[in-house]
Amino acid sequence: MRICRFNDNRLGLVRGASVYDVSPVLDSLAQHRYPLPDHDPLVAALPELRPRMEELAGQAAPLALDGVRLLPPVASPRKIVAAPVNYRLHHDEALADATIHHGTNILPIDKAGLFLKATSSLIGASDDVVIRFPEARNDHEIELVAIIGRRADRVVRKDALSYVAGYSIGLDMTVRGTEERSMRKSCDTYSVLGPWMVTSDEMPDPSALEMELTVNGEIRQKTSTSNLLRDVAALIERASSFYTLMPGDLLYTGTPEGVGPVKAGDTMVAQIAGIGSMEINVR
Amino acid sequence: MRICRFNDNRLGLVRGASVYDVSPVLDSLAQHRYPLPDHDPLVAALPELRPRMEELAGQAAPLALDGVRLLPPVASPRKIVAAPVNYRLHHDEALADATIHHGTNILPIDKAGLFLKATSSLIGASDDVVIRFPEARNDHEIELVAIIGRRADRVVRKDALSYVAGYSIGLDMTVRGTEERSMRKSCDTYSVLGPWMVTSDEMPDPSALEMELTVNGEIRQKTSTSNLLRDVAALIERASSFYTLMPGDLLYTGTPEGVGPVKAGDTMVAQIAGIGSMEINVR
Repeated sequence: MRICRFNDNRLGLVRGASVYDVSPVLDSLAQHRYPLPDHDPLVAALPELRPRMEELAGQAAPLALDGVRLLPPVASPRKIVAAPVNYRLHHDEALADATIHHGTNILPIDKAGLFLKATSSLIGASDDVVIRFPEARNDHEIELVAIIGRRADRVVRKDALSYVAGYSIGLDMTVRGTEERSMRKSCDTYSVLGPWMVTSDEMPDPSALEMELTVNGEIRQKTSTSNLLRDVAALIERASSFYTLMPGDLLYTGTPEGVGPVKAGDTMVAQIAGIGSMEINVR
Repeated sequence: MRICRFNDNRLGLVRGASVYDVSPVLDSLAQHRYPLPDHDPLVAALPELRPRMEELAGQAAPLALDGVRLLPPVASPRKIVAAPVNYRLHHDEALADATIHHGTNILPIDKAGLFLKATSSLIGASDDVVIRFPEARNDHEIELVAIIGRRADRVVRKDALSYVAGYSIGLDMTVRGTEERSMRKSCDTYSVLGPWMVTSDEMPDPSALEMELTVNGEIRQKTSTSNLLRDVAALIERASSFYTLMPGDLLYTGTPEGVGPVKAGDTMVAQIAGIGSMEINVR
């Protein structure tokens, strides 16, 4: 199942080049005043909602995918977790290039651990990345994103993929500088998620997905998730050893080599096999 | 006004040693299904809710403060932002002690920037800190916390305090190691907030507040916020230069010298002048 959010917070299923509006299913979610849930309510409810979503899609008129505005497929994640230097060749380029490392200590991933991105930085595939510091180097970083489906506390690697609700493409946009990653990668619009979520039953094995990012038509990053130093399951094990992952939490799994700057006016196209493709404008 | 949350998500005003239940005011907040608000709805609505809260408190029977279970005064923050090495003597001790720095590069705050803590780590004054890695060094860090009251995007220092809804005491609990701060400081229960929020009209100047933390009765940390290298207003300016701060976002302002390990069975007492005091058990 390919689940998207579009236009004015509508919920849709994507089939081919069409979107089928299944928004009425949202009416079955509980209402909250205060406190708010500690997780994303749609992702948490997906197992129960799916039959009704299929049914509604069967009754809906198709909308042209290229005529809708795509929002981030997860609206209300409570945490965005991300892996640094998780491809060997990206680790090498970060160590070699002072305009990436800025004199800071680039530790290998097992020592560096994972970092957080602000949820306020999240945008969808139809939004623009807005460069926050035009005078600095602002880089594209394509990544496979795993969307956590259920509460995960100290999960072991062999069980970890069963905690994944689905996958999306992510762009972990980054200002280079000396600041902590959790600051430099948290500017408004610096976490792109899209174009939709492919549920994990359609993607049982995320370990050999081809991915590619172009800027203005030129290939900048190209690899396979088979080159991840720590795979999706290992990252979930590591993250959940420190803190409980909740439904809707996002796990950006790290970017391959080829990171580089973008500026206003550029267009990035990001694609991952089995998920799809999205075109993001920079302004 | 001193605002607390207690027992089963009740809202209260604290006056002396009593709590007055003003929970009916929560019924006036909007209900949400999906998406959830991108901010804390109670903190955002406080300016409108305050007259009714005063009125309800006047009609409520007093409850003994020491008979209620105190929850974090902000239930649903979307971001927890925190300042590293923001007191000179703490910066010095971090540089000097390998069991603090673990061979990582301790940059000064203007280079290190700010970091994020997971919202899933948040607990209140009546909760226990649960040591996640007993084999590691797990440290107490008392901090003044500013609670953001309204949307703050690229705010300048001279205006910054007008964006603060109130203040609480925070404990930025920390596992020492080589990982990014945003991971080591995000374990479940590692962000204590309490005992209540003192609204900023009662605390117009946060720049000279005495604070102290004891462990099992022994003084470990003692300073004044006058020793902050970057004060509350400067931190808001810096944070909001990278990302938009939203109502309910928490800003942990940094800890003074004297950080040290705690273990199961220890009791921490944290106090800040003008706010109050809270006793936190470690298990």
